[in-house]
Formats: sequence, C-alpha cells, structure tokens
Amino acid sequence: MDRDIKQKEGLLIVISGPSGAGKGTVCRSYLKRNPDTILSVSVTTRQPRRGEKEGVNYFFRDKSTFESMIENDEFLEYAMVYDNYYGTPKEYVFKHLNRGKDVILEIDIQGALQVKKNFEKGVFIFIMPPSMKELKRRIVSRGTETPEVIMKRFKSAYDEINFIDQYNYIVVNDRVDKAVKKIEAIVMAEKCKVDRNRDFYINIREGGCLNDRSTTK
Amino acid sequence: MDRDIKQKEGLLIVISGPSGAGKGTVCRSYLKRNPDTILSVSVTTRQPRRGEKEGVNYFFRDKSTFESMIENDEFLEYAMVYDNYYGTPKEYVFKHLNRGKDVILEIDIQGALQVKKNFEKGVFIFIMPPSMKELKRRIVSRGTETPEVIMKRFKSAYDEINFIDQYNYIVVNDRVDKAVKKIEAIVMAEKCKVDRNRDFYINIREGGCLNDRSTTK
Repeated sequence: MDRDIKQKEGLLIVISGPSGAGKGTVCRSYLKRNPDTILSVSVTTRQPRRGEKEGVNYFFRDKSTFESMIENDEFLEYAMVYDNYYGTPKEYVFKHLNRGKDVILEIDIQGALQVKKNFEKGVFIFIMPPSMKELKRRIVSRGTETPEVIMKRFKSAYDEINFIDQYNYIVVNDRVDKAVKKIEAIVMAEKCKVDRNRDFYINIREGGCLNDRSTTK
Repeated sequence: MDRDIKQKEGLLIVISGPSGAGKGTVCRSYLKRNPDTILSVSVTTRQPRRGEKEGVNYFFRDKSTFESMIENDEFLEYAMVYDNYYGTPKEYVFKHLNRGKDVILEIDIQGALQVKKNFEKGVFIFIMPPSMKELKRRIVSRGTETPEVIMKRFKSAYDEINFIDQYNYIVVNDRVDKAVKKIEAIVMAEKCKVDRNRDFYINIREGGCLNDRSTTK
C-alpha cells in the first residue's frame, strides 16, 4: 500500500490570542486528546525553577548563547520579558515537523506575528473570548492582578483583536471541549488542503497510493 | 446572548471528482449524518421518470424555459447531456445559503469548474479514489459499462486529476465514513475562517457576543 510514499510534514499549529482568552487551557486539552502532537519547547535565559527540566519545560541557555542564536537566525520568534529572553527554536520545531509530527505553539499575539513572518505555512488560530465582558471577568478572576494591570490587559486585548486579519482561523473559547474540537477539525481540514497534497495526488495518478495523513483519527 | 447578530450565510459545499470516486455515496452519507444540510436540486429538460417529484428530484422545465434561464444568468452551472439540459439554479442555492443553511452540490469536474467561476467562496472538495487501480475496479464493478466506456471513463479520470489545483481540498475516499468525517471537519474549519467571520469579531470587540455557527455540532 505505501510504496512511493515519503513522510509528510507535520503542521505547525499556532494557538494565540489575547490574555484571558484561554489559550493555555485549550492547548493542554488539545494535547491530552492528541498525544501525538508535540508541544513546542522554548529557549529561555531565566533561571530554572524547582522541578523544571532542561528540554521539557525549557531549554535553559545563558544570555550570550541566546544572543548568538538570535545572530544566527535560529528563532521562529523571540522576545525579552522582565530582563529575560524567551524564544521558539527553529531546530526543535522543524525536527518534529520533518518527522511528520504536528507541533503546537501557544504564544501571544506579538510572537505569533513574528512566527508568521518566518513560517507562513503554519496554521494560525486566534482564540477568542465569547465576549469582552467574559474576557474581563476571566482576567479579574485570576485574582493576582492589580486594577491597573487588569485595565492594561483589557485594553491590549481590545487592540489585539485588530490583528485577527493576520490569522487563518478564529476559535471562540466559550467551552474548552468545543474549542478543542474545532481545532481538531481545522487540523484535519488543513491536511486535506490541495496545497499541502500536491506531490501526493500526482503520485496517485501515476499509479501509487495516497498516504492518508488522517488515518490515525 | 444573541443581540446584534445577523444570520450567517451557509456554505456551498461542492463535492466533485472523477466518475468512480464515490461522490454519490459520500454525499448521501454526509446528508444522513447532517440532516440540516440541503442537497441542491437541479433543473432539467428531461422527462420526469416514474416517482420523480418536481422540486425534490429535479425542477422539470421545457427547453425554451431552460434557455431563457441561461440567457438570464440564472445558473451556477449547466450542461447538455444526451440532448437534455441539466443545471444548478442560483435561486434555489442562494435562498438556502441566505437562510444560513449549508448546501451540498454533487457534480462532475466540468460543472464544478463552472460553479467556481460563478461562486468562488464555495468550498470545493475533490473526492479522490485511493488508487487508480481501485478506481478502475469500481468503474468495472458497476457491470453496466462496455469496455470502451470503461476505458474512456478511466482515461478522463486520469486527465481530470489535473484540475485538482482548482479545488480547495482533496478527500481520499478509501472508506466512506472516514471521507465523510473529513468533509465534516472541512465544513467546521471553514466556518472558523477569519475571512468568513470579519463582521463577527468586530461585533465582539464592540461589546456583542459571537454567534457561534458550530454550536449545532
């Protein structure tokens, strides 16, 4: 059945959206239901916290190493937050994609826009709160932010919605299970796209069989 | 919850592909699982057969009526087959789309290419046999075709695969249930596309709620 088939590239699934939209919860639930998907691991210059493991939670590097990685264009995106660098290493992501694994990347909007510049064939999904009121409620209910931070977050969520045009899909996170099902549908649909299957239908026509990427579902 | 919401347009789902790929079986199974989806009804100039009902199987019209409909640009596509016209009426399709219903259209490749010219925002799905060998087996196993017709069908299937670039998605029909699940995923994903939700995220940002089109799933 599988003659003439080369491994198909996995998908880079970029999960992004404003603070409070529920990106993290959605990603964790997606990964639980789709254990073959790889969670992208970031490089950081901050110190490891108790229990954090190299290559699992982060790749821990010193500042000069990080900066030489920037020099060498080794990041899909990076940013400095409170004096520490964080970045998504191309090598880790591409290694898994080339092996046919999907990679999921949970990232803020500025990061997603950088990734898009470097890797346009990623699937860019904007996680949307069901309403701005609910977004505010979620930010407030964390209980850890000052009123100033809450207002700032809320204001930037409002502004960030203007960047939706840079994304491929919007998923409303009113219920996590529904949001995850939509992301699963998006991933399945993307794998059926003509643009992603050109080699394969030519192969079929010439007598081969199509390696059906969605057989695992 | 639903204030400020206007009805969203349904999707036109165009199911196409070579003879023997199994378009008909896939469509019937999709409709069974998704009874809210409307099957497009064609206009024809051929005589009704026993049991066929006006507006259910076809809209039966005489030749001069059909030709004036052509004149008035009332078809998404039409063709003449064995001296009879067949066509997909815009009015019927648009009426349902405007009510928010998805419409499914099972059609050969020449027809699909015409529809694309007239309605680019349709979702064009190419149903692909798992192999050319299997395609040949399916055409032969109908038992109704002469060897000449079989060779002609097979040859045109081979040529038609060149038109895949005009489609959005390829779905391999190795098993009907899997093919249908992929079409369901495609429909769900298309409804999450940024391009199809522009009005809605602006509405959310300005204080409304998003009318989630996939809540029925």
